[in-house]
Amino acid sequence: MTNQELMQEDLKYIFHPCSQMKDHETLPLIPIKKAKNSYIEDFDRNKYLDCISSWWVNIFGHSNDYINKKINEQLQNLEHVIFAGFTHEPAINLAKRLVNLTPQPLEKLFFADNGSSAIEISLKMSFQYFKNKGLSRPLFISLQNSYHGETMGALAVSDTGLYKDIYEDILLKTVQAKSPALHHEDEAIEDMKRVLNKHKTQVSCVIIEPLVQCAGSMKMYDASYITKLRSLCDEFGIFLIADEVAVGFGRTGTMFAIEQAKVSPDFLCLSKGITGGYMPLSVVLFTQDIYDAFYCDYNEGKSFLDSHSYTGNTLACSVANAVLDIFEKENTIKTNQIKIKQIQNLTSKFNYLTNVLEVRQRGMICAIELRGYDTSRRIGLEIFQKALKQGVYIRPLGNIIYFMPPYCFTKIQIEKMIETTYDIILTLDKG
Amino acid sequence: MTNQELMQEDLKYIFHPCSQMKDHETLPLIPIKKAKNSYIEDFDRNKYLDCISSWWVNIFGHSNDYINKKINEQLQNLEHVIFAGFTHEPAINLAKRLVNLTPQPLEKLFFADNGSSAIEISLKMSFQYFKNKGLSRPLFISLQNSYHGETMGALAVSDTGLYKDIYEDILLKTVQAKSPALHHEDEAIEDMKRVLNKHKTQVSCVIIEPLVQCAGSMKMYDASYITKLRSLCDEFGIFLIADEVAVGFGRTGTMFAIEQAKVSPDFLCLSKGITGGYMPLSVVLFTQDIYDAFYCDYNEGKSFLDSHSYTGNTLACSVANAVLDIFEKENTIKTNQIKIKQIQNLTSKFNYLTNVLEVRQRGMICAIELRGYDTSRRIGLEIFQKALKQGVYIRPLGNIIYFMPPYCFTKIQIEKMIETTYDIILTLDKG
Repeated sequence: MTNQELMQEDLKYIFHPCSQMKDHETLPLIPIKKAKNSYIEDFDRNKYLDCISSWWVNIFGHSNDYINKKINEQLQNLEHVIFAGFTHEPAINLAKRLVNLTPQPLEKLFFADNGSSAIEISLKMSFQYFKNKGLSRPLFISLQNSYHGETMGALAVSDTGLYKDIYEDILLKTVQAKSPALHHEDEAIEDMKRVLNKHKTQVSCVIIEPLVQCAGSMKMYDASYITKLRSLCDEFGIFLIADEVAVGFGRTGTMFAIEQAKVSPDFLCLSKGITGGYMPLSVVLFTQDIYDAFYCDYNEGKSFLDSHSYTGNTLACSVANAVLDIFEKENTIKTNQIKIKQIQNLTSKFNYLTNVLEVRQRGMICAIELRGYDTSRRIGLEIFQKALKQGVYIRPLGNIIYFMPPYCFTKIQIEKMIETTYDIILTLDKG
Repeated sequence: MTNQELMQEDLKYIFHPCSQMKDHETLPLIPIKKAKNSYIEDFDRNKYLDCISSWWVNIFGHSNDYINKKINEQLQNLEHVIFAGFTHEPAINLAKRLVNLTPQPLEKLFFADNGSSAIEISLKMSFQYFKNKGLSRPLFISLQNSYHGETMGALAVSDTGLYKDIYEDILLKTVQAKSPALHHEDEAIEDMKRVLNKHKTQVSCVIIEPLVQCAGSMKMYDASYITKLRSLCDEFGIFLIADEVAVGFGRTGTMFAIEQAKVSPDFLCLSKGITGGYMPLSVVLFTQDIYDAFYCDYNEGKSFLDSHSYTGNTLACSVANAVLDIFEKENTIKTNQIKIKQIQNLTSKFNYLTNVLEVRQRGMICAIELRGYDTSRRIGLEIFQKALKQGVYIRPLGNIIYFMPPYCFTKIQIEKMIETTYDIILTLDKG
């Protein structure tokens, strides 16, 4: 089969995620035949450097030998079992390791299948915690420019109009405070104070994406904001939810972004990298105090009865354990520092291009924001297409190009990713 | 490690789904070491017949040799790749097969990760379809006693108070019509007519679980209701969403429950059995007309931009293809008819027990509703515990005991499942 044949077959049946299918009248949909480490390969034998970790999920490369081996071992014994009333070793080991890796107040864990479901669980638990104590606090606070997922609860606390606006009539009303990624930190904290003072006893939680608002144009902010926000949440007696679905597992340079603020959230939501890009899994970690609020005699009616059929999926837990093994064996967080520095050095020259507004970076995430191009030109898409022809896959986000490579990228691969992009942006007409 | 040791370790860290954790002060949490075909085995070497398919997901047995082989083959080539702008053979093959297997008007497919996410997608698409045509129809109609999932959109169209009531203040208001599983079919249709007449142009869709309201006490109804409802939806120009997350893939005797009504829904949501109990995956099938409503130039702003990172996960699609292979090779739908008949024959004698209110069955789902027991006694839990001691795992649903075995159950295993349960119910005191 060729790319063309498979694309035609695909377009007969499939509606792709986050895609305007009409784009594929001119933009080829690329069928991937195989992938290994940093590369994906199509049916016409073109190879592409996967510079965005296949949508921010892959961290140790494709078809990783160690992870494959671990899946195989697991398949021989147990692929999955109901996780209500039953349990299994991969889940217990994973839970223990995650509790040990995350800030000390996070002692308990709830499993789910994807990032959105994890967000929904943290919101529902926040609300029900107060409800179980006889209080109704139906208001959720998030930041402007935030993105927390696609299911209706997760979408309700998001603020990226592209994904949310059209659904306004069917979403819960929430309140957004100024984002430290768009405003001065003090101004953002003052605005949060204003919002909390205004709504006070109605609020159950504030939810943030620590350090990087990824889907929100890769806007970034400092850890000091989170430290201040933590104090504010304590002052008002409300929960802080850290949505580290995108930024967890080493993305920002530390294992979890929140570490850089030297505080703990009340809820920590994790997904994507947790399974190294292999399959869906998400978890929500929270405090003993929160766990206790649901612990009672069944007939008291305070149970948290959320569930998805594949909650605590054995195969996925097994993969997540393999991912943590690799983090340990390869001392990834430490060795990534060299790569982070390399990205920083190589991208500094983008700052001298007149069509570049800003280069920003937090660990293994680096964004190049362009200027001078009308939205309708879709300049990001143009750069994406040019890079793809040179075997470099970068996915644009409006007028922003970003790098979010797997941690297995070599020095040469990082160089290729950045230099190819630089040459394309350098030779673009200036809009 | 022993059961006891692993349970203690688990309870330090994990909050289990749909569980009151305090129950585990008296009720052992069972760590499963391995599983093969119809049996799961704990760390104390006790074996249990998995009579509820590990929460309705497993259909061809645990650690199935053929599925394992197929996962292995897939792992060698491609574990996963971003599904926006890219595609792969397992997804294309699966999409084609599902479109061919489902009613003819369902021509297109969108992937997601779990049942709740599939429901959210069908609701969002229903709403946006009208929005794209300039109409706001924010009202979703469902049935009383329905269950559609845990994320806030899916929960909003549910009507099982146990899961929903506490969240009332944060859920979208929806309307429930009388359920044909609780009322006479004509009465239910009349009520639906009343609801639709009342809200008319506000409504975008009606969502139902065809034939069996599983989480809603395994209440059942006839296909003729769906046939009538289909006409009603056509008359009012609104969508019919069939949530076959639980009842799809042969559960009710036909491949999909809706077939028995000889009509097609506008949206069909599938999950659980789709991967034979291996890992999370869900899909939403819909009509060409719906697909077309989102097909336009990108800048028109009518795109459906929903996505989860692992949308179209390659491994999961590969497993789903293996599941469909087995359906074909073993002619499962046909061979299941004998098992369905056997279950019917063996359970008929429950009707003569004075503590049994009703025995009801649709295909491979059979429920025994008890009577005369106060809710606080949790009689289902008592039966579950007694059966477990005899190596038979049945999970109760309030005062209801149900059988939902994998299709690999042998004649002798079906007999054991039913006879063990019968003896327990027979010897219960009468409440």
